[in-house]
Amino acid sequence: MSLITLTTDFGSGSSYVAAMKGVILSICPSAMTIDISHDIPPQDVRCAALLLCEATRWFPQGTIHVAVVDPGVGTERAIVYAEMGGQQFLAPDNGLLSLVAARNPPTKLMQLAERSYWLESVSNTFHGRDIMAPVAARLALGLNPELLGPPWPALKTLDWPQPRVLPERIEGVVIEIDNFGNLITNINAEMLSGRLTDRRVRVVCGRHETWGVYRTYAERPGGALIALVGSSNRLELALVGDNAARRLGISPGEPIILIWE
Amino acid sequence: MSLITLTTDFGSGSSYVAAMKGVILSICPSAMTIDISHDIPPQDVRCAALLLCEATRWFPQGTIHVAVVDPGVGTERAIVYAEMGGQQFLAPDNGLLSLVAARNPPTKLMQLAERSYWLESVSNTFHGRDIMAPVAARLALGLNPELLGPPWPALKTLDWPQPRVLPERIEGVVIEIDNFGNLITNINAEMLSGRLTDRRVRVVCGRHETWGVYRTYAERPGGALIALVGSSNRLELALVGDNAARRLGISPGEPIILIWE
Amino acid sequence: MSLITLTTDFGSGSSYVAAMKGVILSICPSAMTIDISHDIPPQDVRCAALLLCEATRWFPQGTIHVAVVDPGVGTERAIVYAEMGGQQFLAPDNGLLSLVAARNPPTKLMQLAERSYWLESVSNTFHGRDIMAPVAARLALGLNPELLGPPWPALKTLDWPQPRVLPERIEGVVIEIDNFGNLITNINAEMLSGRLTDRRVRVVCGRHETWGVYRTYAERPGGALIALVGSSNRLELALVGDNAARRLGISPGEPIILIWE
Repeated sequence: MSLITLTTDFGSGSSYVAAMKGVILSICPSAMTIDISHDIPPQDVRCAALLLCEATRWFPQGTIHVAVVDPGVGTERAIVYAEMGGQQFLAPDNGLLSLVAARNPPTKLMQLAERSYWLESVSNTFHGRDIMAPVAARLALGLNPELLGPPWPALKTLDWPQPRVLPERIEGVVIEIDNFGNLITNINAEMLSGRLTDRRVRVVCGRHETWGVYRTYAERPGGALIALVGSSNRLELALVGDNAARRLGISPGEPIILIWE
Repeated sequence: MSLITLTTDFGSGSSYVAAMKGVILSICPSAMTIDISHDIPPQDVRCAALLLCEATRWFPQGTIHVAVVDPGVGTERAIVYAEMGGQQFLAPDNGLLSLVAARNPPTKLMQLAERSYWLESVSNTFHGRDIMAPVAARLALGLNPELLGPPWPALKTLDWPQPRVLPERIEGVVIEIDNFGNLITNINAEMLSGRLTDRRVRVVCGRHETWGVYRTYAERPGGALIALVGSSNRLELALVGDNAARRLGISPGEPIILIWE
Repeated sequence: MSLITLTTDFGSGSSYVAAMKGVILSICPSAMTIDISHDIPPQDVRCAALLLCEATRWFPQGTIHVAVVDPGVGTERAIVYAEMGGQQFLAPDNGLLSLVAARNPPTKLMQLAERSYWLESVSNTFHGRDIMAPVAARLALGLNPELLGPPWPALKTLDWPQPRVLPERIEGVVIEIDNFGNLITNINAEMLSGRLTDRRVRVVCGRHETWGVYRTYAERPGGALIALVGSSNRLELALVGDNAARRLGISPGEPIILIWE
């Protein structure tokens, strides 16, 4: 049984998602479709790139991932096939795959050009249904990806804010807010390692600050601001038992500074 | 493996949806359930009828579609089985299936009456779980639909606003708003064909207007109001890179007028 | 094919849910994962306990249910395996399983302690992905649950408000609000049986009241407040064709009183 995941900005319960699944199952009835997310903010390629990077690495070798956040649909932007980390990806080449590729550089990269693998009639506004879904289903049936079109030189990359790492200080930003309102940053565990021998690190976020980096939420009392390394290996700030983003009024892009004193 | 889709107004994550899946999988463990949508506005039969019409046509022959938007549950309204376009449908006969039927007239129509295919105990308020789910599972196991009950004469239809098509003018309405805020109308591509040789068509929606019908969103700059034929073959209005419904304050029912000048 | 259900407070479309599914399918590719809900309010153990109780009883024998609402993650709270009603459950022992257990007392109860069935690297903040998902997948492959760890003495219980049942009066509370805004109470059908021979029962909720307990919503006109026994065998109050919770401003915890006069 082949596994095909879907990541879109169509909204859960949209007929667009159902149409993609119908096309996939019409061509490959034994495919198992898994929704990674349909709640990407409309046309937010960066948010989807981050989610794909977090989510796809837990899936088995051979999984086929289809990502459709596609503000350039119908223009000359390419749709690409990429093999990365033993998995197969289909997406518009607009940066969606750039974070996965930074971790697992593509071992094969093709442009989707061979129309015989697409639906017969291709709309101008919905290539997820008309191109990517049928190609995913045919890959699930064993289609050789080299037949999809010509090689593609390189994936488009996005500029991501990089943390500034100094001996006594790390300057990062909030890049994501999860369902609990936790503030997830671009500072990862490696940048911190060897520097957490005691709690003498001050963590500053806007007008708010806290001391130390903890192991888990329950080490501080309810309502306390706490810094810890979360399950994605990134530094995050949380309000214990509360929603930090909403309570403190913080959005992605907010600077976070660690200072050893 | 049999494919059973679900369309309801129960809300994603509702225990009602899970109960239906549990009943189906208890009777037919090899069934694959696919959620078309559980985010139909409560009791909005028209919205569900439209979504079913858009979504179900992409599914393979033999798919079993179960639709539960059922304000009349527990009254004398019938629950029906319909074969349309080689697929099987189960729904209360309240208009839910009327748009699918307008495209693919039923080739078989039965009333669900034979209680031996239902759960033993049937509640007054949840026939999706107690009647439709077990019948869908038994159809997936190969039950002959003629055994479900007596033939049913005809599906209930809904009155839908029809566009007024004149030589120099088409008057339609917004019938649906998608996750991007695009305004989808009841004017379809056929009504426009042969009339789009140049851009001299004015598209008016309330206090707003734009000129021409385009191929795809990216042909106009960000923030522009654009008209195009969308992926469902219907005329739609969009704000490039923005949410037209929210920004312009437009809801379903709003008139859209095309004027050739 | 093994059936694994997921119930969490991660939010639909969260990368955390996808990560759990990826882990499960990496270990047991033939598992079928079913989402019961990911829309539990953050850290609301009581809400999840109620949903699990309603939803799981419709699933077949042998289903594996994984529930992750886990405010104590990373502390010394145990993660447990429980067999109840012929199904298998994995959850932190924080009360999540207490309502299922009240209906179907556990026939086997183990603490998850044997690390060889977990992911190699276990985070401090996401035991759903690192412990429960791999154990669920191994149970689906046939792992003997006795190998998971030592027996566990008893599940943690939660205090639930019990209705006060008097000869002429029942005092309960709203415990849940569904997607339609219906007010579902802790008063069940058994408490009412034999007392509904006529409509001379007054149902009081805050400043609102109605008379009689009906069979189904459509027995009263649109906009009427109606009491009935819903599909979970509990007394509920609804506004016919409207959202009672929003319109009347009622939340869980609101008292509901039945008075026979």
